[in-house]
Amino acid sequence: MSDLEAVLAHVDVQAHDYVARLMEYVRQPSISAQRIGMDEAAMLACDIISERLGMEAELLPTAGFPCILARHGPIPDKPTVLIYGHYDVQPPEPYEAWLSPPFEPTIRNGRVYARGVGDNKAQHFAHILALEAWHTVHGSFPCNVILMLEGEEEVGSPNLAGFVREHRERLAADFVVISDGHLHESGQPVICFGNRGFVSFELHARTGSRDAHSGNFGGVMPNAIWSLVHLLGTMKNADGYITIAGLHDQVVPPSNRERAATDALPVDLGAVQSTLGFRAIDRPEDRPYYDRLMFHPTLTINGLHGGYEGEGSKAVIPATAFAKCDMRLVSGQTPEYVMRCVADHVHAFAPDVEFRPLQGTPPARTPIDSPYATYLIEAVRAVCGSKPLIQASLGATLPTHVFSTILGLPTFLLPFANADEANHAPNENISIDCFMSGIRISAALFAALGRSIRMTRKDPSHDPDNLRSG
Amino acid sequence: MSDLEAVLAHVDVQAHDYVARLMEYVRQPSISAQRIGMDEAAMLACDIISERLGMEAELLPTAGFPCILARHGPIPDKPTVLIYGHYDVQPPEPYEAWLSPPFEPTIRNGRVYARGVGDNKAQHFAHILALEAWHTVHGSFPCNVILMLEGEEEVGSPNLAGFVREHRERLAADFVVISDGHLHESGQPVICFGNRGFVSFELHARTGSRDAHSGNFGGVMPNAIWSLVHLLGTMKNADGYITIAGLHDQVVPPSNRERAATDALPVDLGAVQSTLGFRAIDRPEDRPYYDRLMFHPTLTINGLHGGYEGEGSKAVIPATAFAKCDMRLVSGQTPEYVMRCVADHVHAFAPDVEFRPLQGTPPARTPIDSPYATYLIEAVRAVCGSKPLIQASLGATLPTHVFSTILGLPTFLLPFANADEANHAPNENISIDCFMSGIRISAALFAALGRSIRMTRKDPSHDPDNLRSG
Repeated sequence: MSDLEAVLAHVDVQAHDYVARLMEYVRQPSISAQRIGMDEAAMLACDIISERLGMEAELLPTAGFPCILARHGPIPDKPTVLIYGHYDVQPPEPYEAWLSPPFEPTIRNGRVYARGVGDNKAQHFAHILALEAWHTVHGSFPCNVILMLEGEEEVGSPNLAGFVREHRERLAADFVVISDGHLHESGQPVICFGNRGFVSFELHARTGSRDAHSGNFGGVMPNAIWSLVHLLGTMKNADGYITIAGLHDQVVPPSNRERAATDALPVDLGAVQSTLGFRAIDRPEDRPYYDRLMFHPTLTINGLHGGYEGEGSKAVIPATAFAKCDMRLVSGQTPEYVMRCVADHVHAFAPDVEFRPLQGTPPARTPIDSPYATYLIEAVRAVCGSKPLIQASLGATLPTHVFSTILGLPTFLLPFANADEANHAPNENISIDCFMSGIRISAALFAALGRSIRMTRKDPSHDPDNLRSG
Repeated sequence: MSDLEAVLAHVDVQAHDYVARLMEYVRQPSISAQRIGMDEAAMLACDIISERLGMEAELLPTAGFPCILARHGPIPDKPTVLIYGHYDVQPPEPYEAWLSPPFEPTIRNGRVYARGVGDNKAQHFAHILALEAWHTVHGSFPCNVILMLEGEEEVGSPNLAGFVREHRERLAADFVVISDGHLHESGQPVICFGNRGFVSFELHARTGSRDAHSGNFGGVMPNAIWSLVHLLGTMKNADGYITIAGLHDQVVPPSNRERAATDALPVDLGAVQSTLGFRAIDRPEDRPYYDRLMFHPTLTINGLHGGYEGEGSKAVIPATAFAKCDMRLVSGQTPEYVMRCVADHVHAFAPDVEFRPLQGTPPARTPIDSPYATYLIEAVRAVCGSKPLIQASLGATLPTHVFSTILGLPTFLLPFANADEANHAPNENISIDCFMSGIRISAALFAALGRSIRMTRKDPSHDPDNLRSG
């Protein structure tokens, strides 16, 4: 029996206890947006790590909620993996939509239901339990590990970049693993090499000091909604192409390997259509499904409001209207440049419309041929019997750039949760099978790292200056 | 002293009493939209007419609130004027914005403040008092008069067309005078020969069964707001031109006389800009001010709502959005045809967007060379010392078409109220000078009609089949 086999046998024996301990872990509320239970949750995570893993967990302050940091090693010549997770959860509202209360974890149909169980507690808890199993069975870990848990992911990680800059030395690692999000919709394991970035902004139109009567002044008084409609029409055309000058200039097209990996991803458009209830896919119509989520920036109107909203008709010319928009950025794009493109466009086409930038997060992309990916692939194959899918980028935005760009480390998303985890929604859950599989994959990853010898840091494939060489 | 001079002298003597009686008249609430005080107000108007004018006022039922009808004559060979007004008023809300309670008439700075005093009670009360003065001084009227007061103007006159069709015989007149609205902004008296029509409709977009996350599905799930933005962009372009096929086909351009009269109207764009607080006039920029309000249909977005409305950003792709729109129609256009043009356009450009027609009112236009106009011009000149301005059309919409089209009668708007009457708004008022001037103009109109001989009904200038000959 190999070292890993012994660990996996222990994990199997402990399964019932692990699920019970997961339920205790998620029973503690930790709603960062509402400042509920955060101290207790941070202490609980520290205690779990310090008591059973043979590592000392530290609570390190930020301008917001603290980060938890624990380190094993360094064992010379062994690689160091930085595992990032977050102990805060989304607000659970609306309570009435939950079949069991969000902070009273309940098992139904082989799943644990609780707020935060999928996003992200069961996923980083799986890593914690894998480390515990190695420690229990062998008294040590086969590689170097840094565990880092953030408390502000659900409120946009406002202090994460500052934290990793400040603690750069303590976070010295060879690569980063983030277990968040979910398995591929097909049920297969997946490794994501990055994610899209994000900017958000508002457009405010004011065409007068007050609304006017459309009979008395229709044709005379300009209309704030028409201002926004015509401006927005110059930003993305009816065929679905973004028409803001310069916006695509930074975009790095997919490499040949990213292209091939993307073409190999299974697509079940019918399932997506049935879930979201749409008939035709968004324009432009000629793009492959995953190209839409990985390689093309988007411009979404999140909300547009102006004028009369009640029953029937009201003969009013609205003097004010606003739109809230977000854009998803792809590899190569920076929030600063994109914001400037949008601001310049608004200024050129509708100088009277006020542009208000809100937030920005850069995209992140780790080269698809990063040698560190082989450890993750090996771990998944050891546990699941087949290779994971390779996804160049998630459509959503995570704080990955903090690791891949600021720390310059190859960063991988290795999600454990089921695709229908209902994160950010009522009845959030994780399948017990997915949770247990996550523990096993994590244990196998440590084993794979333990068999390897640390690569030199100047291997160009994970040099941050070379991130876009694909 | 002529007959009219005797009447005007009586009016001068009665001025104080007339204002006191106006205040009693408007003290009675009559809010049709809220069904408040309607019976009492109708009875009060009937009593005033029957007691002091020597005419018998009848309360005639409709499917809604009753109409009041009173008739003097017929004196053979004398023309008959139908005077239309309405005894209902707008809701007074918001109460806290009134300096004195809306149904406790108060005089400040030479004005009577009360809900409904300008729109429309003082204006039709001026005609009633002119008739009373003629009756008091001379024991008779110099011409034939039909007084008609509606109780549902402020709720869109839903039963007016049916009423005039049903009572066509009792409404047999030569022409119609409506004293509603206000003097020209320059303070000069004005006669309007018609008004714009109106259609309203809603556009409803649904691009999915629920909102989706802009990260997970941005680029995949279609966005209901984008659907509306792109559809609306095909209906009116950024230069301000309506681009709905067929929409202008029915439009009758202004006649040479309408053109000349319109060019002679004084314009104070700066005053309008200062009142409404807009910098640049609505596009297209090259249209004369009054052309905008008379000769070009408009397409106004009254409201557009979809997606997130709160603070900050929310990464949502809205699955639903709606727009409420109205159009003002000009001479020649019919609501039915315009609605069909819009429906066809929506079907062609956005077949998934639902078109919901709401209301429609035809425009009205009396030939600017109608011989009946000379009586009104003469009356204004007799009282004010100068000719009134001649306005081919109001920008707003009134139920005038019921008289001009259904009854086929030349119909004139002869407003008495000051331009800042604040109708439909808090602190509605009428200047006592304007009110007294209205009584005198009305008295002079009856005198002018008394000096004339009735024209044959087949004079082509007021033949309804010939209304658009200009």
